Amino acid sequence: MSFPPLANDTFLKACLRQATATTPVWLMRQAGRYLPEYKATRSRAGSFMGLATNVQYATEVTLQPLERFPLDAAILFSDILTVPDAMGLGLSFAEGEGPRLARPVRDEQAVAALQVPDLERLRYVFDAVTSIRRALNGRVPLIGFSGSPWTLACYMVEGGGSADDWRGVKSLMYSRPDLMHRILAVNAQAVAAYLNAQIDAGAQAVMVFDSWGGALADGAFQQFSLEYTRRVLAGLKRTGADGATIPRIVFTKGGGLWLAEMERLDCDVLGVDWTVNLGRARAVVGGSKALQGNLDPAVLFAPPEAVAAEARRVLEDFGAPHTGSGTGPTHIFNLGHGISQHTPPEHVSALVEAVHAHSARMRGNANGS
Amino acid sequence: MSFPPLANDTFLKACLRQATATTPVWLMRQAGRYLPEYKATRSRAGSFMGLATNVQYATEVTLQPLERFPLDAAILFSDILTVPDAMGLGLSFAEGEGPRLARPVRDEQAVAALQVPDLERLRYVFDAVTSIRRALNGRVPLIGFSGSPWTLACYMVEGGGSADDWRGVKSLMYSRPDLMHRILAVNAQAVAAYLNAQIDAGAQAVMVFDSWGGALADGAFQQFSLEYTRRVLAGLKRTGADGATIPRIVFTKGGGLWLAEMERLDCDVLGVDWTVNLGRARAVVGGSKALQGNLDPAVLFAPPEAVAAEARRVLEDFGAPHTGSGTGPTHIFNLGHGISQHTPPEHVSALVEAVHAHSARMRGNANGS
Repeated sequence: MSFPPLANDTFLKACLRQATATTPVWLMRQAGRYLPEYKATRSRAGSFMGLATNVQYATEVTLQPLERFPLDAAILFSDILTVPDAMGLGLSFAEGEGPRLARPVRDEQAVAALQVPDLERLRYVFDAVTSIRRALNGRVPLIGFSGSPWTLACYMVEGGGSADDWRGVKSLMYSRPDLMHRILAVNAQAVAAYLNAQIDAGAQAVMVFDSWGGALADGAFQQFSLEYTRRVLAGLKRTGADGATIPRIVFTKGGGLWLAEMERLDCDVLGVDWTVNLGRARAVVGGSKALQGNLDPAVLFAPPEAVAAEARRVLEDFGAPHTGSGTGPTHIFNLGHGISQHTPPEHVSALVEAVHAHSARMRGNANGS
Repeated sequence: MSFPPLANDTFLKACLRQATATTPVWLMRQAGRYLPEYKATRSRAGSFMGLATNVQYATEVTLQPLERFPLDAAILFSDILTVPDAMGLGLSFAEGEGPRLARPVRDEQAVAALQVPDLERLRYVFDAVTSIRRALNGRVPLIGFSGSPWTLACYMVEGGGSADDWRGVKSLMYSRPDLMHRILAVNAQAVAAYLNAQIDAGAQAVMVFDSWGGALADGAFQQFSLEYTRRVLAGLKRTGADGATIPRIVFTKGGGLWLAEMERLDCDVLGVDWTVNLGRARAVVGGSKALQGNLDPAVLFAPPEAVAAEARRVLEDFGAPHTGSGTGPTHIFNLGHGISQHTPPEHVSALVEAVHAHSARMRGNANGS
């Protein structure tokens, strides 16, 4: 496999703490329901799974936000539960509801039966990665991703999302930590293999979404989430087929209190949510990690001028970006969580424009070039 | 009004950072659905509002957990939305659902119409405080409480809880901060008056529940939550009718990242949830504030031995309590959130026993006396 050279490497450079002319920006869930063209494709696909498992559709929706906004990265369109599905747990989506797993992992027997899935069952994901990378044609880099072992375990035990503070998974964790550790060990192996296959297929960076790490108590987080993210990172390839370094991003939503411990992870970028002050986070981890985040997606419900003002505030919170040669503190602008389906697309335009313009000004570079 | 002298002042002493023989313990929502006797009273009352607005019933359920467990404080049984209800917003509870407000505050006109309620409309709460204080007969102190101005505003704008990341209230906040500030200013005045009336009626400590402060972004939290909690505290009486000091507790769920700023609040105790390491929190605020928290309520789903082990871990995280004369770092054991309705009551027994026994041992005091 060979792909065209990259026209915009701002995102990858910032991941590796190298200076860039502007602060790169992309948005979690940027290919999604707030875009009418996404809804049109989804409607053609018939269902969410029909969309996510079809290489053409997945390619199409991944590129849609890039047609509208000058974003600095694309992210694979896929679901966070592809791996549990490949483990045989039976993923489905009821209209207007969240994901369901038909065969949740709730007892000793189910835990014992759990295995790293045959990666062939995830071939549709890797094919989508290659297809998207081709379609991008070097425009911006493509990010691959997976849920963290803990976050996958949350859904695997509950059988879906939780309206009840993850009662099922936490009960198992506190009652039978041995079973929980076994689930997490399998997940860590599976996630590493899954991300490596995405890298082989053409992903230029990878991100681990620890969406529910912040639901854990201090102590439990380190033991049941962080440790298994560490194992994933230890199993990851460092370079793609072309020899390029593959930056690694870890994002624990609600994990701001554990940043000092997360700094010891073998990754390049730490994502932070909107409760974190970027200046303080930089003081804690900026010496070794790039930071990604952290606008509250709810800001995008406000008028464009207010959106732009909040974007500037986030950039100023991070402070002056490093501009020299070598490495130094860098910031990748993003939301602190996935974009809401209720977001007006023109507010996203205002956001991306404000990030590029203001971050160029902060570098004394009036036009951002 | 005069009340019998207090037999167990461990909780009040710990609030004021004075040494105690054991670490006091009480549980948020300790009078609640996990107790069969609570369900029996509620069933007699016919509805949640029938329970909360009836002085006899409110007294009965407030005392129920004290009959089962040697808890060190009682907390007024009431709802967090009594104040918005008294403002005329029309509170109701549909069976199996959360609270609803019939007339949410969503536009300029509704905001302009908002007023500090006539406290007479909340007379049932103050009567309950006096009745409970009498029924306690000096056994343990009685805590009064209110939602924070921000937390009340969340429900007032949304018309109930939020399944959607508080989209309505955050949209208003980012689009029309002027309207949000007006709601919060009215709420702050109302909450101060409400808590003062509880103090007059016999409450021996007061707690401000900022349950949704942690949903806010850094920056927004300080402006829209913390500032109005500060105003409430500035309006509060320092002593009860008998001249006793009334300790003030502030709990922002998800507020662990803002502890250093919260230390500047004019209160005695800061509550923290389970994501916070108590030892680190003590290092940040222990020089001036008592700490309350922070067991994950999900721990109570585990077997009693596991519950006791986690309770000991929380006590050890806080570290050696101060034992001298004068003031020093103190800990009030609690959950990091309200107890779940699914909790087996016998696990609560194990918790309370473990807290008293282990905290006595940590003071070199074998029997806790």
